[in-house]
Amino acid sequence: MTGGPTGPEGISAEKESEVRASFARQGLMRAIGAELAALGPGLCTVEVPFSERVGQQQGFFHGGVIGAVGDTAGGYAALSLLPVGSEVITLEYKVNFLRPAAGDRLVAEGSVLRAGRSVTVTRVDDFVEARGRRSLCAALQQSIMRAISPST
Amino acid sequence: MTGGPTGPEGISAEKESEVRASFARQGLMRAIGAELAALGPGLCTVEVPFSERVGQQQGFFHGGVIGAVGDTAGGYAALSLLPVGSEVITLEYKVNFLRPAAGDRLVAEGSVLRAGRSVTVTRVDDFVEARGRRSLCAALQQSIMRAISPST
Amino acid sequence: MTGGPTGPEGISAEKESEVRASFARQGLMRAIGAELAALGPGLCTVEVPFSERVGQQQGFFHGGVIGAVGDTAGGYAALSLLPVGSEVITLEYKVNFLRPAAGDRLVAEGSVLRAGRSVTVTRVDDFVEARGRRSLCAALQQSIMRAISPST
Amino acid sequence: MTGGPTGPEGISAEKESEVRASFARQGLMRAIGAELAALGPGLCTVEVPFSERVGQQQGFFHGGVIGAVGDTAGGYAALSLLPVGSEVITLEYKVNFLRPAAGDRLVAEGSVLRAGRSVTVTRVDDFVEARGRRSLCAALQQSIMRAISPST
Repeated sequence: MTGGPTGPEGISAEKESEVRASFARQGLMRAIGAELAALGPGLCTVEVPFSERVGQQQGFFHGGVIGAVGDTAGGYAALSLLPVGSEVITLEYKVNFLRPAAGDRLVAEGSVLRAGRSVTVTRVDDFVEARGRRSLCAALQQSIMRAISPST
Repeated sequence: MTGGPTGPEGISAEKESEVRASFARQGLMRAIGAELAALGPGLCTVEVPFSERVGQQQGFFHGGVIGAVGDTAGGYAALSLLPVGSEVITLEYKVNFLRPAAGDRLVAEGSVLRAGRSVTVTRVDDFVEARGRRSLCAALQQSIMRAISPST
Repeated sequence: MTGGPTGPEGISAEKESEVRASFARQGLMRAIGAELAALGPGLCTVEVPFSERVGQQQGFFHGGVIGAVGDTAGGYAALSLLPVGSEVITLEYKVNFLRPAAGDRLVAEGSVLRAGRSVTVTRVDDFVEARGRRSLCAALQQSIMRAISPST
Repeated sequence: MTGGPTGPEGISAEKESEVRASFARQGLMRAIGAELAALGPGLCTVEVPFSERVGQQQGFFHGGVIGAVGDTAGGYAALSLLPVGSEVITLEYKVNFLRPAAGDRLVAEGSVLRAGRSVTVTRVDDFVEARGRRSLCAALQQSIMRAISPST
């Protein structure tokens, strides 16, 4: 880990700015209006307000968006624990849909289950918020691989 | 199955127009520029040209797009075998990423492995095309549930 | 749910005896020495002591045993919430292995994430115990379908 | 790959004997009566005759056995492509059950979808045979990691 100052969420300011810069380069996240809401050691929350761009044929959040946002939350949760300069790729994820994602906002909370030397396993809970009530609408399990080690 | 005339791909014209109308209502598919390229009995192909809207931080197709497009291809492959008026929901899918999806076009080919009374299992192959060469970049397995039976 | 007396773990005595009888009919669970250690509403724990019968080539618990025991724990967690006389089948499960399962005892704790009308989604944590220390060695996500409704 | 003589199935005799020796050390495979039926480059078939030891409560093959045998078939399909002296571990697998596995024999056919530098992705088809008829009863997708490189 870096020796830099630690941000309010418990990771270094350098790591946080690196993760936020990476998120900002994701065209898909911009296209669907997603924002990186919170970042901590082994934790990442991504949120998306509902819009037509993220809907399916019945007007709910599209399962593909739920998967994509969950994938992103889990990936950055994993990256948060790696040294500055690391890159990650998703090996795989699996998502179970629990109820129709009807609501105003989608919130994906990723957390690291196990950070291995080369592979990190995460779980992500996807919640949908409707009129202030939050329901678990999907559950993911994901494997993330460390792709590039920082040059030192 | 319906008794209507069969379309060029082997499903009825009524079923084909129903599936295309459902696809057209998916805001996400429009937002990412996806098109329903082919439909047959138990088969569906969805394609997406590369654009910034579907990219991740390195300029490749975002894993979430690969999952979303695969989810859609598998779901409509399942729906193609159900009576007109049916609706489907995705119970779950799992996607393994095989190589970086660097290219001009993403092609997801969904096919039904087993059509059960209430649950259909599909496999989807996601290819990326670069300079005319096609490579398998992801593999999905998915469960689709019949949500609404046509009124009879 | 049944109206019978509730067992010490919070489910009815009738349900508990039904689940235990079903478990006892699983030849595989007997063959590997598994026992149903605990049962509650939406919860089930299955344990297996290490023996050569459950090993892989390096002398650890075989991944297939970890999956099988997890599958069983999740399935009975789901069944615990259904009326007496119900039957369940596994639609699918996915297991991520987190570390080598080297130890004396495997403990799979299944819990229900979401009990739907026909499909229940569970998560299962698999722990391995070595010299009294317990480590999470695998994580499952599973879909269970209600196969037979009790005749009433 | 090794420079040794190639066996009848297209892999070297040295590799084949290494894989068979590894299989023979798997206590679980012995306990359930599984045999390594065929091995080729990127391919492996494992078979299990039905017995009480592999049954669930209705007398069919237990889903956990289907997963375990599929996991083994996929793992050795991956190992068949690696240099002699390599070891592999399963990162994860997912199995969809397609129909009740009622029959005399279970046959798992694993094949490599993509052999990467450190991670190999496989698909496995599980068939059940009853009175000479073979039906696809389960489908797996799996990630295998190269754990130990041969010393050179």
